[in-house]
Amino acid sequence: MDVWIAGAGMTRFGKRDVALLDLMAEAALAALADASIETPDAIMVAAMNPEEFTGEGNYGSLVGTYLGLSHVPALRVETATSSGMAAVYAGFASLAAGLHRSVLVVGGEKMTQLPTPRVSEIIGRSIDPHERSYGSTMPALAGLITRAAMHERGFVLREISQVAVKNHAHGARNPYAHFQGPVTLEAVMESRVVADPLRLLHCCPISDGAAALVLTTEPASVRIAGIGQGTDSIAVRYRPELTSFRATQAAAEAAYRMAGFGPERVEVAELHDAFAPFELISLEDTGLVPSGKAGRATLDGETAVGGRLPVNPSGGLKARGHPLAATGIAQLVELVWQLRGRAEGRQVPARVALAQSIGGLASNNWVTLLEARR
Amino acid sequence: MDVWIAGAGMTRFGKRDVALLDLMAEAALAALADASIETPDAIMVAAMNPEEFTGEGNYGSLVGTYLGLSHVPALRVETATSSGMAAVYAGFASLAAGLHRSVLVVGGEKMTQLPTPRVSEIIGRSIDPHERSYGSTMPALAGLITRAAMHERGFVLREISQVAVKNHAHGARNPYAHFQGPVTLEAVMESRVVADPLRLLHCCPISDGAAALVLTTEPASVRIAGIGQGTDSIAVRYRPELTSFRATQAAAEAAYRMAGFGPERVEVAELHDAFAPFELISLEDTGLVPSGKAGRATLDGETAVGGRLPVNPSGGLKARGHPLAATGIAQLVELVWQLRGRAEGRQVPARVALAQSIGGLASNNWVTLLEARR
Repeated sequence: MDVWIAGAGMTRFGKRDVALLDLMAEAALAALADASIETPDAIMVAAMNPEEFTGEGNYGSLVGTYLGLSHVPALRVETATSSGMAAVYAGFASLAAGLHRSVLVVGGEKMTQLPTPRVSEIIGRSIDPHERSYGSTMPALAGLITRAAMHERGFVLREISQVAVKNHAHGARNPYAHFQGPVTLEAVMESRVVADPLRLLHCCPISDGAAALVLTTEPASVRIAGIGQGTDSIAVRYRPELTSFRATQAAAEAAYRMAGFGPERVEVAELHDAFAPFELISLEDTGLVPSGKAGRATLDGETAVGGRLPVNPSGGLKARGHPLAATGIAQLVELVWQLRGRAEGRQVPARVALAQSIGGLASNNWVTLLEARR
Repeated sequence: MDVWIAGAGMTRFGKRDVALLDLMAEAALAALADASIETPDAIMVAAMNPEEFTGEGNYGSLVGTYLGLSHVPALRVETATSSGMAAVYAGFASLAAGLHRSVLVVGGEKMTQLPTPRVSEIIGRSIDPHERSYGSTMPALAGLITRAAMHERGFVLREISQVAVKNHAHGARNPYAHFQGPVTLEAVMESRVVADPLRLLHCCPISDGAAALVLTTEPASVRIAGIGQGTDSIAVRYRPELTSFRATQAAAEAAYRMAGFGPERVEVAELHDAFAPFELISLEDTGLVPSGKAGRATLDGETAVGGRLPVNPSGGLKARGHPLAATGIAQLVELVWQLRGRAEGRQVPARVALAQSIGGLASNNWVTLLEARR
């Protein structure tokens, strides 16, 4: 059974002085209004760790009650930083199984009220416990992967930095983005070191926000053509390959198989650039750019709005921001707007779109393919 | 598409000096061995709050990696204390949608290493934030509901206490149970007050443990005939009715509708007796006993092993124990063993079974119906 996206909505991302429940409600109500649906058959909620970030749990019931939909079945889905897309998958499965006809998917996170070291500690719980016991953090592991990619795959710091420049330029055109201003290549390359060779402007910010979709079995403007999950060892030390993500490759393969087409039909993409080099790795892992070509394609402007294959027209995690469980859903919200021709100021011509979301240090990734209704 | 249970396994519940991952692995490997499946197509993991109970997150990836199945898609599902059955539902949906042919569902919790007040605090996150701000705890709210049920519905403390006596007697026959000894009616009624009128032996213990099932599209010994979710306001103060659970009623209605039969065919049940009076409420909410008759039926031995409708032959949450996200799965493990005729020492004659799981203070409940293969 085909599954469609009938509604999309999100909050502005950034440092938001608003409770997580209010952010979730704002996004959910926008998506429901967009779909002209008041009461969905079910609600899938994504939040990575609301207990520690906000002190509240039982988040499926909490969101349902807060929306005035306490009689609608609601559950929470979690796959670390890709939880949003995992919730989309859970909604997709329940519709494809014929268990429901419409599902509200809503995800969000609220983190900026906490000190950064505490946020790092909470996010760090998604790292393998043994590796964490030696002091690994997400930026430290990403730095290690980046260094290896520069050595083994010839990634150059200028290419990596250009990802940030491009995505900030895109974010400046997106009123929902955390960062609204452009940055220069020099500013990126001279920003302070976070985890060598990664600098501050190679890393996504800590953001608050929420995003929501309404999925239906009734045809709407955009169809979920494919959705695939891929996993890998949570322990980075067990992976045969450090500089590409098996979890993305497996997710992409599953999504393309379901869709019945490959990367050649994709015209716009949202990729998980939590760290700028991850956009280059993901471009190749999804097959959107041939192996070894992602850096060059970025420097040449191929992946900018106006280029051959615009990537992260929203600004990506780098500039739109990364409220963890909101992110996978926000990627799809942006792509729905693009496919509908409603991405004012950053519109690209496209009928087929791809989103890729990374959970943890690429242990639990998702790829989703969207297609505009013919 | 029909969904079957091909494998079932669980750990002994109780105070276990073993890591949660090891408990999960023990249950998962037992279920996989029982199903004669080495590599399932997907893994659904249930844990209510592993981050705060154990310090670890990204639990889908962690369990998959620990099982040596890091390449198998894994995600985590959460609906507070009913998370186990929510994960069964997620597995059911992905099989019914044709996305997979076999799914490992594994859930567990590890709590006894923490001081009881900290466990209460973590569990308390599933209470409505406003009600919690006035000092509500789970036992306090359960006490309030019990008092109201005694007043409005004529529940008598002797009937409520008999639930505990019966379930301890059952648990004494179950080698997997937390408590292995019987208790007398006097001991229950004279145990110390926890939240008036509830006494210590009316309340389930804090337990560690894990349980697992393997679901398949290929016919096996037991079929999931129906599965339904029901929800209600997380805020107890918003409910029109305190002494019955709308969430159970809605879940039962959905499960019976899917199964195409009603409570009259059910011959054995596992109900969520986190507090002894909840077994009486749940007996009537599921329609297994007519309204107003649950107390009498319990005193008369109708719900004991050997009675007309054995309830909680495993010992229930009261005596088998309640490692939160393990519980909904453990209920189904017990019923699979019963339907297969493998519940030595406590076997009841049955071909159709019902399990009911309560999430939070009955905000997110599930009912599952199992049927032995003809």
